[in-house]
Amino acid sequence: MSSKTPEERIAELGLRLPPAAAAVGNYEPWVITGNTVITSGNLPWQDGRLVYTGKLGREISDEDAYRSCQLSCLNAIAQIREAVGELSKIKRIVRMEGILGVADDYKGDHPKALNGSSDLLIKVFGDRGRHTRMIYTNPVMPLDCTSLVILWAEI
Amino acid sequence: MSSKTPEERIAELGLRLPPAAAAVGNYEPWVITGNTVITSGNLPWQDGRLVYTGKLGREISDEDAYRSCQLSCLNAIAQIREAVGELSKIKRIVRMEGILGVADDYKGDHPKALNGSSDLLIKVFGDRGRHTRMIYTNPVMPLDCTSLVILWAEI
Amino acid sequence: MSSKTPEERIAELGLRLPPAAAAVGNYEPWVITGNTVITSGNLPWQDGRLVYTGKLGREISDEDAYRSCQLSCLNAIAQIREAVGELSKIKRIVRMEGILGVADDYKGDHPKALNGSSDLLIKVFGDRGRHTRMIYTNPVMPLDCTSLVILWAEI
Repeated sequence: MSSKTPEERIAELGLRLPPAAAAVGNYEPWVITGNTVITSGNLPWQDGRLVYTGKLGREISDEDAYRSCQLSCLNAIAQIREAVGELSKIKRIVRMEGILGVADDYKGDHPKALNGSSDLLIKVFGDRGRHTRMIYTNPVMPLDCTSLVILWAEI
Repeated sequence: MSSKTPEERIAELGLRLPPAAAAVGNYEPWVITGNTVITSGNLPWQDGRLVYTGKLGREISDEDAYRSCQLSCLNAIAQIREAVGELSKIKRIVRMEGILGVADDYKGDHPKALNGSSDLLIKVFGDRGRHTRMIYTNPVMPLDCTSLVILWAEI
Repeated sequence: MSSKTPEERIAELGLRLPPAAAAVGNYEPWVITGNTVITSGNLPWQDGRLVYTGKLGREISDEDAYRSCQLSCLNAIAQIREAVGELSKIKRIVRMEGILGVADDYKGDHPKALNGSSDLLIKVFGDRGRHTRMIYTNPVMPLDCTSLVILWAEI
């Protein structure tokens, strides 16, 4: 990875870190335990607005699902930055969990949609962004959002 | 947090810790790894009976779903107590995972239902109960229970 | 546990470790953080072919779901071996996560299907294989596979 900071990489991608969003329930957006930061589930917020709602295979195209996963992941990165101050303190993104809202009869390729999160992590953190991941599909999502993303990072 | 123990807090809430329930498959109810206790999924058991069965948006009201999450969480706390002896040994509840059984066309506010778990953790553990969480909705649940709750705690 | 290695146990069961499968998205099959190995979700691959596809309660019997969970778990064990070299380096299987693809109206006993993973872990690792677990049911699975299994192991 070059000497650029993750924050500089985000800017180069034409993206910007949103402010760390408040929780949508009685929980914390992140916790540090030992040398691990864990976030809660992140919705695709931008400027206080939920950009992607609805399910894959119904209201949401695969392309928008990819964008939704990217935006959820950007919100998760914002939480990690809030937790540790500077993203260069992250040694490794250990695990990414993604949940996608789907119609029961959806037949598409949702792992590609979750690459919206995975691709962003690798672009922003380089080799340190190489993560394991778990993919889930759920029939009902909080506020009908399209995607939820959690990150586990080693500091 | 006051000098009361978590066990005293539970009693003050008019609740009591159930006995640590047996697993419903070939697994362990809890494991300690390093300084972390992890539970398996906890069903809403009381006195050996599954109190809440059925799905949100079908058989179960949002109020009962809240109670189901509280009861699943109480069972998870009982597992942690079984693992560590006294709940005052818990430094921090790190993560709570909640799964809710839902009808496919459910339109309600299931994060509020999961507050049944989150509120209990904060009442019982005070600031040490402030946790991250992940919410899932599933079409089919073990024994048709309404909620499953897992806790990760730092000791 | 006897002095046999986990690899010898696998052979005695008439099974063989598949080669560690490539990811089906832009992620890593495993990561080591601290003294923990975490895998990504493992599909029921054998000889490069997805053996079990379809949902419980529709195309897949409970018996085949059990076999699918066993095979997904065998693939997860192969990833852990790839990560640490020899399975005898594993001190403890800490957590197993299993996701099953289900029809919305499935009424069966899916925790028994996930015992396909749990039973295998205990046969292969003995007491060190005694794990916590979380079970999920999802309406849509990657490549329509029947089961996904993740392992967390202490080394």
